[in-house]
Amino acid sequence: MKIWQKNIDVDSFVESFTVGRDREMDLQLAGADVLGSLAHTKMLSSIGLMTEEDLAAVQKELKNIYQEVLDAKFQIEDSVEDVHSQVEMMLTQRIGDAGKKIHSGRSRNDQVLVDLKLYFRSEIESIFKNTEVLFGQLILLSNQYKSVLMPGYTHLQIAMPSSFGLWFGAYAESLVDDLQLLKAAWAICNKNPLGSAAGYGSSFPLNRTMTTQLLGFDDLNYNVVYAQMGRGKTERILAQAMSSIAATLAKFAMDVTLFINQNFGFISFPAHLTTGSSIMPHKKNPDVFELIRSRCNKIQALPNEIAMMTTNLPLGYHRDLQLLKENLFPAFQSLNDCLAIATYMLQNITIKDNILDDPKYDYLFSVEVVNNEVLKGVPFREAYKNIGLAIEEGTFNPSKEVNHTHEGSIGNLCNDQIERMFAEVKASFGFEKVEKALADLLKA
Amino acid sequence: MKIWQKNIDVDSFVESFTVGRDREMDLQLAGADVLGSLAHTKMLSSIGLMTEEDLAAVQKELKNIYQEVLDAKFQIEDSVEDVHSQVEMMLTQRIGDAGKKIHSGRSRNDQVLVDLKLYFRSEIESIFKNTEVLFGQLILLSNQYKSVLMPGYTHLQIAMPSSFGLWFGAYAESLVDDLQLLKAAWAICNKNPLGSAAGYGSSFPLNRTMTTQLLGFDDLNYNVVYAQMGRGKTERILAQAMSSIAATLAKFAMDVTLFINQNFGFISFPAHLTTGSSIMPHKKNPDVFELIRSRCNKIQALPNEIAMMTTNLPLGYHRDLQLLKENLFPAFQSLNDCLAIATYMLQNITIKDNILDDPKYDYLFSVEVVNNEVLKGVPFREAYKNIGLAIEEGTFNPSKEVNHTHEGSIGNLCNDQIERMFAEVKASFGFEKVEKALADLLKA
Amino acid sequence: MKIWQKNIDVDSFVESFTVGRDREMDLQLAGADVLGSLAHTKMLSSIGLMTEEDLAAVQKELKNIYQEVLDAKFQIEDSVEDVHSQVEMMLTQRIGDAGKKIHSGRSRNDQVLVDLKLYFRSEIESIFKNTEVLFGQLILLSNQYKSVLMPGYTHLQIAMPSSFGLWFGAYAESLVDDLQLLKAAWAICNKNPLGSAAGYGSSFPLNRTMTTQLLGFDDLNYNVVYAQMGRGKTERILAQAMSSIAATLAKFAMDVTLFINQNFGFISFPAHLTTGSSIMPHKKNPDVFELIRSRCNKIQALPNEIAMMTTNLPLGYHRDLQLLKENLFPAFQSLNDCLAIATYMLQNITIKDNILDDPKYDYLFSVEVVNNEVLKGVPFREAYKNIGLAIEEGTFNPSKEVNHTHEGSIGNLCNDQIERMFAEVKASFGFEKVEKALADLLKA
Amino acid sequence: MKIWQKNIDVDSFVESFTVGRDREMDLQLAGADVLGSLAHTKMLSSIGLMTEEDLAAVQKELKNIYQEVLDAKFQIEDSVEDVHSQVEMMLTQRIGDAGKKIHSGRSRNDQVLVDLKLYFRSEIESIFKNTEVLFGQLILLSNQYKSVLMPGYTHLQIAMPSSFGLWFGAYAESLVDDLQLLKAAWAICNKNPLGSAAGYGSSFPLNRTMTTQLLGFDDLNYNVVYAQMGRGKTERILAQAMSSIAATLAKFAMDVTLFINQNFGFISFPAHLTTGSSIMPHKKNPDVFELIRSRCNKIQALPNEIAMMTTNLPLGYHRDLQLLKENLFPAFQSLNDCLAIATYMLQNITIKDNILDDPKYDYLFSVEVVNNEVLKGVPFREAYKNIGLAIEEGTFNPSKEVNHTHEGSIGNLCNDQIERMFAEVKASFGFEKVEKALADLLKA
Repeated sequence: MKIWQKNIDVDSFVESFTVGRDREMDLQLAGADVLGSLAHTKMLSSIGLMTEEDLAAVQKELKNIYQEVLDAKFQIEDSVEDVHSQVEMMLTQRIGDAGKKIHSGRSRNDQVLVDLKLYFRSEIESIFKNTEVLFGQLILLSNQYKSVLMPGYTHLQIAMPSSFGLWFGAYAESLVDDLQLLKAAWAICNKNPLGSAAGYGSSFPLNRTMTTQLLGFDDLNYNVVYAQMGRGKTERILAQAMSSIAATLAKFAMDVTLFINQNFGFISFPAHLTTGSSIMPHKKNPDVFELIRSRCNKIQALPNEIAMMTTNLPLGYHRDLQLLKENLFPAFQSLNDCLAIATYMLQNITIKDNILDDPKYDYLFSVEVVNNEVLKGVPFREAYKNIGLAIEEGTFNPSKEVNHTHEGSIGNLCNDQIERMFAEVKASFGFEKVEKALADLLKA
Repeated sequence: MKIWQKNIDVDSFVESFTVGRDREMDLQLAGADVLGSLAHTKMLSSIGLMTEEDLAAVQKELKNIYQEVLDAKFQIEDSVEDVHSQVEMMLTQRIGDAGKKIHSGRSRNDQVLVDLKLYFRSEIESIFKNTEVLFGQLILLSNQYKSVLMPGYTHLQIAMPSSFGLWFGAYAESLVDDLQLLKAAWAICNKNPLGSAAGYGSSFPLNRTMTTQLLGFDDLNYNVVYAQMGRGKTERILAQAMSSIAATLAKFAMDVTLFINQNFGFISFPAHLTTGSSIMPHKKNPDVFELIRSRCNKIQALPNEIAMMTTNLPLGYHRDLQLLKENLFPAFQSLNDCLAIATYMLQNITIKDNILDDPKYDYLFSVEVVNNEVLKGVPFREAYKNIGLAIEEGTFNPSKEVNHTHEGSIGNLCNDQIERMFAEVKASFGFEKVEKALADLLKA
Repeated sequence: MKIWQKNIDVDSFVESFTVGRDREMDLQLAGADVLGSLAHTKMLSSIGLMTEEDLAAVQKELKNIYQEVLDAKFQIEDSVEDVHSQVEMMLTQRIGDAGKKIHSGRSRNDQVLVDLKLYFRSEIESIFKNTEVLFGQLILLSNQYKSVLMPGYTHLQIAMPSSFGLWFGAYAESLVDDLQLLKAAWAICNKNPLGSAAGYGSSFPLNRTMTTQLLGFDDLNYNVVYAQMGRGKTERILAQAMSSIAATLAKFAMDVTLFINQNFGFISFPAHLTTGSSIMPHKKNPDVFELIRSRCNKIQALPNEIAMMTTNLPLGYHRDLQLLKENLFPAFQSLNDCLAIATYMLQNITIKDNILDDPKYDYLFSVEVVNNEVLKGVPFREAYKNIGLAIEEGTFNPSKEVNHTHEGSIGNLCNDQIERMFAEVKASFGFEKVEKALADLLKA
Repeated sequence: MKIWQKNIDVDSFVESFTVGRDREMDLQLAGADVLGSLAHTKMLSSIGLMTEEDLAAVQKELKNIYQEVLDAKFQIEDSVEDVHSQVEMMLTQRIGDAGKKIHSGRSRNDQVLVDLKLYFRSEIESIFKNTEVLFGQLILLSNQYKSVLMPGYTHLQIAMPSSFGLWFGAYAESLVDDLQLLKAAWAICNKNPLGSAAGYGSSFPLNRTMTTQLLGFDDLNYNVVYAQMGRGKTERILAQAMSSIAATLAKFAMDVTLFINQNFGFISFPAHLTTGSSIMPHKKNPDVFELIRSRCNKIQALPNEIAMMTTNLPLGYHRDLQLLKENLFPAFQSLNDCLAIATYMLQNITIKDNILDDPKYDYLFSVEVVNNEVLKGVPFREAYKNIGLAIEEGTFNPSKEVNHTHEGSIGNLCNDQIERMFAEVKASFGFEKVEKALADLLKA
């Protein structure tokens, strides 16, 4: 059943090529599609395009369908083109002609636009929550191991003393900045495109402000041409936000594969969380982190893929945009999996103590010694030269005390400040406002 | 002169390979480098690492150098490795040993980090301002031509009536959303990395909060390992923000090349702003927009390039990061050029009236007629079918009146709301606070 | 069942995260895996590591399994980790301990390497064949419509006369060049990695030359470290080759969406191959070509995705590489679909005659007229100026005869030369040699 | 001076925006441009469009200009738009009106196309030669250090014995495969587009076969529309070929930064080829290899950048293509620099002997021991289990003899075979044929 068909059958080869994996993807939009229809029909009724009776019937049955979605009972039939047609068909089967009226005043274009925005909001919230848990775990480890020193590298050369407190805390703070991009993506998703119809608006006296409030959006995509233009753009920006978190995770995974390598040997994981070889018992292959790295690098390539598929397309809807679902939707699951399993692995990490007892790390302390001289009044360049000569002459004998006190240093990690920044970003999303609006819509 | 050299000459081949275009790039950081040193030395003095006399001499001379930068007189000598060494050398030549003390308590790593953040803030403000001018021009045109209709396309097929008011306004609103990403980049740039030294902090009792306030930063990059990790990441995020504006411009440029094509013929530009052929006088090649499109697509590829150059590098500084300057710095100029010339071209655009008088556009109005039937009480699916048959039978005779009233439609563009959203994003940056802090630092 | 496990259960979360979609992907390698084992066991026997009896039993049963793969009856059980383990397990269940011996002298690393190379060779041949069919269709259309003129555009501005013969022929010739890259990918795939074990070779006296011949490879990946390094690299190069064909298809699809647009109106397709709108009967949405464009742009982004996932990984196997299957394998099907459906659509294309009768295309002929003057002896720059003035004064009245005779021009398409080049590239692959070797291996 | 201008001045803002860095880039095309004109004018004369006298004058002066290019005396004046106009202007100034005739029968479109192909051929040959030198150095080192063992890693975990012979040889063989792509790019560049005019051919009776032979091209780009379409496509494919060499170099650079790290400590370079820190004398920062890695990763991103700038452009010339010069031309220099400096560094590398004496590497030999058992007749899975238990019980005591004999293994590197493959690829280019044709053209 395709509503734009009259009496000519679309060739079956063309059919399977054009539908592709769309039904599978659309299934994830089912909840959002029902929410959009709940708001749209209330608005239709308010402008006299739907009777009170029809509205009541439609609202009741849409909520039933919503429950079926929650219960994972909702399916898109093979004979049905997409999630929008499926919902409309179910409604019409169950409550009769009233079901057909839900399509008044909108097209599939703005219907899928609003579905995507609602779905993306929900996915952003999931990513946020998984990020929050990982953030908490990193802060916990940073506080726990704040006194355990490790070598710090520059150019991958042994450079200065660092600590596990610094290492874990760095990635926690990295996530805070990543959330700035997620916040931008949220702001862009949190505007209502419903009512833009096929991208050129409608002659119906729609009340777009009303659906905006009912669906908990912060604002409208006002210009209807722009509302349509948001397709592809929203996906790209959301992918960019995800790529930032992914970049943080991938870098952390790279560190882990290095630190678990036997030439470093700074950390380890229990055997049941690594893979090995029965004849090389020392081998603890960090497969989980290699796959986190790989998945996250794939996500890092995602914004480019979306840009390649959308650049140089002139304005207006193009069928090209359908395929973006296949790129983006699986990436949500993948990123959430990576965040969750990284947390899980970190709950089981073992840290090696006393790494710096190994004399090969002695040189780490040379800068400390220079600075101590400066604090005693020796000009920096002179102290620098003196210690250099001492090292060359083999008379360098460092104290391995590290006394760093300034903000963000080994002795003063400022994890409370990092947590404060996290809380500020979190508050700026306003998840509760959205949750409340949707709860009201489903309840009322 | 390389400060890490003692008595061994670096091979000249290696020298030229490693320095590359770095001096040329570093020149753009000169102002930022001086600002950083102004703040750093005040802080050094406050913790007793610089005398009042030295501080006074240093501050006075740094401000002189800053003026030389503004006057485009500042140069990096061939024998000098980078901008940081150049400033320190000039200072030492002019005020003696006090000049050498400005390097205490920092390394070149955090020095370049803070330089970059200051420079990026300044470039973000420039991009913002050029975007604001283009935004204003688009809104102006949208209001001016709000009543001039044009065809709206979906699948590049004639679909529904649109208007020049919608077209220009759509791109104005697109820029508002792009600024959300620029805002995120700003938030990430607007944190102070100074004091992180080589990425592992310092044994000096630095007061990083003080330099944060002096330089007008909103907050600190607390964790010193994270501060270092910001290199590459900040560039990537800034490039992502730029790519979003670039995507809007590139899409607009694609529309222009299409609409100026003779098969469309919707718009034109004066001959002196196009290029032509003396034997094909109809030809008005839209070279400017082709080059906007091309430059902006290049900028769209930039975040990926940065990701490719930084992914899978473990933590700590790597020399790889130096090359990011060559990618990013020219993109600032390029994007600003594109924004400026797009504005300029739009100040000279000519719009064709009465496009829809051409009968080939009659079908645009079919949806209007369906909706009018629905408003009279005919069910949507039925009206849809009736008009379809009328069209097939050749009895379709549309009124070409367009009466769209809802938010964001042809008759109700809501450009005031779009301007309100722009103003809200603008206010969230807080450019004035930064400008004031830097003015104080240069004055005090 | 994981062969590297002794007595510790891998955590189930880790299990599902690490396996991912690997079983699904591995299914496509089943035929290749059996072929590799057929060759490997013959070689083992030849160096005395497998008895004649065991070899006979193994060969017979492997051929049975190969038939099951062909009959789509082969499955990878949920309890089995990958295709290699599945084949070994089936063999052992059916013929006893002899089945276990097939793993001697290799590791899963070189086993998957050779599987991939065999699989890629087969996929390259499929892509080649689909390309050949499309090439033939384009040449057919080019010859058929060689006399039908159309406007030629530069800068998307009407420029000079072109023809449908040129248009179709251009894309045919484009495919010939694309095949140069496919040929390079073939050459890289057509070298034998078997015997490299885990990337560091084996202490068994393997005869790698023998397996090379048995599997129809042109040469060896000699260095065992390099053989391992081919993982990821081979995929990237193959994706680059695919991206070149995809770029040709995507560009052609862009042309189609433009030429089918009503402002151009050069071509059309029957209604059952386009999608439409019952109330806009003029609408023939070119969904198939929009999706070809979109899929092909996705393939154009694939080499970058692979590069992002593999760059900066030091030598040796990393689990990251497993995920490349998910990127690349579906792209084979997608590209083949695009090639097939493009051919199918072109079998049904309708060309508009007499396009150039429309006076808006008169200027197309100005360059012709200049050239005719030059042929009569007028210096080029002078003729150029004269016609320019005639056009400006409105006295330009072109003959619409096009008399182009040189190689590759409207009147002399040289499609036979393009077919000759195609045949030369085709011959350079040497598909028959490979087919014969595999047939022998399955027969003998 | 712009030849398409009549009497209207192009606005100066537009002028500087559109010209951009094109003059700077065009300078690199000067030699190619002269070569193209040498061939084109000979052909013009052969079809009666240029007199013998004019031809003689033109040929003589073009050769003078060619010499000026070789002597680096050729400049493009600020008032001149591009290299083609500059050559024509110089010619006309020196020999009068005959100079103007060189433009007959071509447009700037096919002129720049042939310039680019000639220039790319020359750059491909340079890259080939630098690759050949690096290849030779790697083979030299592989042979020299074939008996020096090092650990082999999988998952970055200590796995099996490897050798410096294998390590160096692997990258030599990698370059051989990379050259397959360079060969494909060469094949695509080595076809003649001259005579395609503005992409739609010419009414002159051009002899394109003649210019093909004169310029040493292997074949023609026959179809004139395709010849134009080669712009952008050729660049992308050439960038893909370069990216493959770059990927090999970047991976090698990653290995170097790891192996020079103190936790590995496998290799070193003399102090004058690394950078250091006077107070951390152990520090030998591998800046050269970090910059090789970074530059090569930038080159790896280049094909994507070109694809982003060209995808979805319909057929025909677009000004967008001009900017590709800025992407691609500097990459030639950069890749050649990387190849040369990598060779230079390798001429100075120091290898650590006896790495495997360190007991932490004992487990490397476990697989050897298993295989020895198998060779004695123990089934693989049983031997595997026995040694595993021995290791767990601490009774494992490996012999550190490595006796690998098969093709490509530690004891049998097959570097002669790798050199044979290199020679075969080299021969397939046919550089001599091209060199001879160009020498004849400049001489005759």
